[in-house]
Amino acid sequence: MANEDKQFVTEITPQDEDFSRWYIDVIKKADLMDYSPVRGCIVFKPDGYEIWEHIQEELDRRFKETGHRNAYFPLFIPESFFQKEKEHVEGFNPELPWVTEAGGEKLEERLAIRPTSETMIGHMYEKWIQSYRDLPVLINQWANVVRWEKRTLPFLRTSEFLWQEGHTAHENEQDAREETMRMLEIYRDFVENYLAIPVIVGQKTPSEKFAGAVDTYSIEAMMKDGRAVQAGTSHYLGTNFANAFDIQYLNRDNVREYVHTTSWGVSTRLIGSLIMVHGDDRGLALPPKVAPKQVMIIPIGPPKTRDAVVGRADELFAELKQAGVRVGIDDRGDIRPGWKFNEYEMRGVPVRLEIGPRDMENGVCVLVSRISGEKKVVSQDNLVEEVKAMLEQVHNEMFERAKAFREEHFYSVDTLEEMKASMDEKRGFTLAGWCGSEACESHVKEETGATSRNIPFEPEVTKTTCLVCGEAAKHTVVFARAY
Amino acid sequence: MANEDKQFVTEITPQDEDFSRWYIDVIKKADLMDYSPVRGCIVFKPDGYEIWEHIQEELDRRFKETGHRNAYFPLFIPESFFQKEKEHVEGFNPELPWVTEAGGEKLEERLAIRPTSETMIGHMYEKWIQSYRDLPVLINQWANVVRWEKRTLPFLRTSEFLWQEGHTAHENEQDAREETMRMLEIYRDFVENYLAIPVIVGQKTPSEKFAGAVDTYSIEAMMKDGRAVQAGTSHYLGTNFANAFDIQYLNRDNVREYVHTTSWGVSTRLIGSLIMVHGDDRGLALPPKVAPKQVMIIPIGPPKTRDAVVGRADELFAELKQAGVRVGIDDRGDIRPGWKFNEYEMRGVPVRLEIGPRDMENGVCVLVSRISGEKKVVSQDNLVEEVKAMLEQVHNEMFERAKAFREEHFYSVDTLEEMKASMDEKRGFTLAGWCGSEACESHVKEETGATSRNIPFEPEVTKTTCLVCGEAAKHTVVFARAY
Repeated sequence: MANEDKQFVTEITPQDEDFSRWYIDVIKKADLMDYSPVRGCIVFKPDGYEIWEHIQEELDRRFKETGHRNAYFPLFIPESFFQKEKEHVEGFNPELPWVTEAGGEKLEERLAIRPTSETMIGHMYEKWIQSYRDLPVLINQWANVVRWEKRTLPFLRTSEFLWQEGHTAHENEQDAREETMRMLEIYRDFVENYLAIPVIVGQKTPSEKFAGAVDTYSIEAMMKDGRAVQAGTSHYLGTNFANAFDIQYLNRDNVREYVHTTSWGVSTRLIGSLIMVHGDDRGLALPPKVAPKQVMIIPIGPPKTRDAVVGRADELFAELKQAGVRVGIDDRGDIRPGWKFNEYEMRGVPVRLEIGPRDMENGVCVLVSRISGEKKVVSQDNLVEEVKAMLEQVHNEMFERAKAFREEHFYSVDTLEEMKASMDEKRGFTLAGWCGSEACESHVKEETGATSRNIPFEPEVTKTTCLVCGEAAKHTVVFARAY
Repeated sequence: MANEDKQFVTEITPQDEDFSRWYIDVIKKADLMDYSPVRGCIVFKPDGYEIWEHIQEELDRRFKETGHRNAYFPLFIPESFFQKEKEHVEGFNPELPWVTEAGGEKLEERLAIRPTSETMIGHMYEKWIQSYRDLPVLINQWANVVRWEKRTLPFLRTSEFLWQEGHTAHENEQDAREETMRMLEIYRDFVENYLAIPVIVGQKTPSEKFAGAVDTYSIEAMMKDGRAVQAGTSHYLGTNFANAFDIQYLNRDNVREYVHTTSWGVSTRLIGSLIMVHGDDRGLALPPKVAPKQVMIIPIGPPKTRDAVVGRADELFAELKQAGVRVGIDDRGDIRPGWKFNEYEMRGVPVRLEIGPRDMENGVCVLVSRISGEKKVVSQDNLVEEVKAMLEQVHNEMFERAKAFREEHFYSVDTLEEMKASMDEKRGFTLAGWCGSEACESHVKEETGATSRNIPFEPEVTKTTCLVCGEAAKHTVVFARAY
């Protein structure tokens, strides 16, 4: 490796040295974001934003396929709305920014910037829903929301972030619970099969559920430092918001009843998650399905064959683009191929396509996987299929690696002592029995810094005693330190 | 017409009786929006929001095709940023909402909710742009913005609205001016060929230009009450924001220079415009390319043939859907076809497809244009092509009608007296000569309520004297009362 390349690579702090610095180095260097002059708010630069656009396209397609439609509700929420649901106001009040003046006048009632829209949407649903014929209401919103966080981290926890929030209303508990689970499963499938991130699906403990929900379900992903990210949540809200906003309907027996509501959301923290799950000391590694560039073409060889090789590379570029592959080409003559290889590896481009003079003669080119480094010589005649197969392969490699990593860092413990040792000595998730008391749960947090992530639907083992009090375990819970 | 149908139709106030009431009746009845509890903010209901989604898809495609990429900048703008560009702060300050508290604390510096993002983006560009190699920067943002308006009107003027704002930076004036014109032309082409709204393209007078721009260009559309809507604007900002935010770059001669910037935007007021341009006393008339439902299938005939007809209608529905047509079917057996015809005309569905037992026998169905009412019997064998042709025909009918209406309501005057008479007696746009003085321009406004809309690039006639002072005319200007 030439010096210039080596130096380049070492500009990124190694993950094992300082994972947080690695993360910041990578997202800055790969040009995904920049800090803004407003505390805790970032700028999504084009390469960062485009990841979000690909996430949006696919989720939006899946939401519509399951009968949901998009709508848009106001950014501002009157202060009185928050007072209507007790848990909700307690959960969100500390994080709200307040508009107190507008148009040169002091407002009579302060307006919060929405941290989530259950209250505003509850108010509107009360007007829209009269009878069972109006149900279900299946609405989603793509929007910015604001939570004034004390400690922020680009993508993963920012004061303003982008998300989607689904809000549905149903005739009864069963329909609403089915919806809650349907959306949770859409999230699981999307995050696993689109972002190549394996997740643990389960139910939040009461102390960790959404403020105002009856039950909250989540998918939890393991970052490469062993910490957890809650990658998506789906809430069964029961009749809590229906009560608060008086959303009643005339049922099939002509009796007035409260609707049952759900809400569910994922946000731009998915971008942070996929970086922390897949990235390595060489930089980003982007899942092919959301990568702004899926393939980067790099012509190689001596100056005398350069024009011919670049000419052929341009043709391959056009062919791949035509086939819907997001492809780039770097044909700059004054920059060495080795530097380019490192550059696009750092930027996380899933597949590199190399073509040189001998490849041209043989009618082939070389595809290189960002994950395994595997080099595959493929025929130019069959390029589109070969590239698509390689992208699929890279996706699978990413998922399998992430899954293997999670399995290596998944522990099972029986006592608090074991949990402490596990958290201090190893990175990862820990499965333990829990009696169901909030006291034991918060004791774990105080002693280890780990919170309950969820009660997995399919735990690998079932625990019989609580790791804190030793009483009979009600649940087997995943604990982890979390972002 | 049965009584039930008649009553239904008369629920919408006729346009000639009260155009404003007609507008509110139609958007409420067609379920496009609802008022929110926050002053001046509306809820975009699914059918209203979906029009915006189709506008977004196509504009986004055109922006990307011309080399632009999307990014996302913070909602909040520090107060000090507005102070940096004098005209800008004067223009926007009266309309700003201010966040003064957040996270339980009073903020050291107030944060405005963005009314537009030149200042925030200027601040970031200063960091990003070092050399001519970094130029041009071609970025667009899809976002919500807020302007605390005193008088609001759904879609056309709301305190919070949705828009896109392009922000580009260039090496020199020529490049920036070319970009300004390129985007103006994209808007013209989109609004005419996608929304079927003919527009007048031209330059704003200095008093009507964007606060902080050197030159502002606009496309102006005529509503059915003769008033104007500014449907899109593109600004050449010169080095005004570059000076304010110190955006300098090292040019090709290694000399530091200020960049030249542009900005350009269209907003959800396009939804209001297309309603006011195309709607009639029967209700909405939606341009086919952005209509949530392009075709509504209504099976007809007596009960005994109902199942067979509905069965065949379902097949046609599937075929059209498969072909990418946005199609609906209303096969409710307890509602009369006549009622349905009125309902979907009111909702503005461009094409109705009727199929009855005799049509089935003959292998045909009937397509009906929402605009001309023309009924066309078409073969079922050729349905997709026939439907696509009919959608194209409806688009053309809409454009031609709107254009004819505009021509009928386009006047040319030589004196203020004529202008007054024109504005009082007729609805429409008025072309007049103008000497270029702000005094004459504001005199027209005081006397007639009309503002200068723009100086059209291609005026129908060229005026030689100013309509107010009688001095030599510098420009031929379109005046109109405007939303």
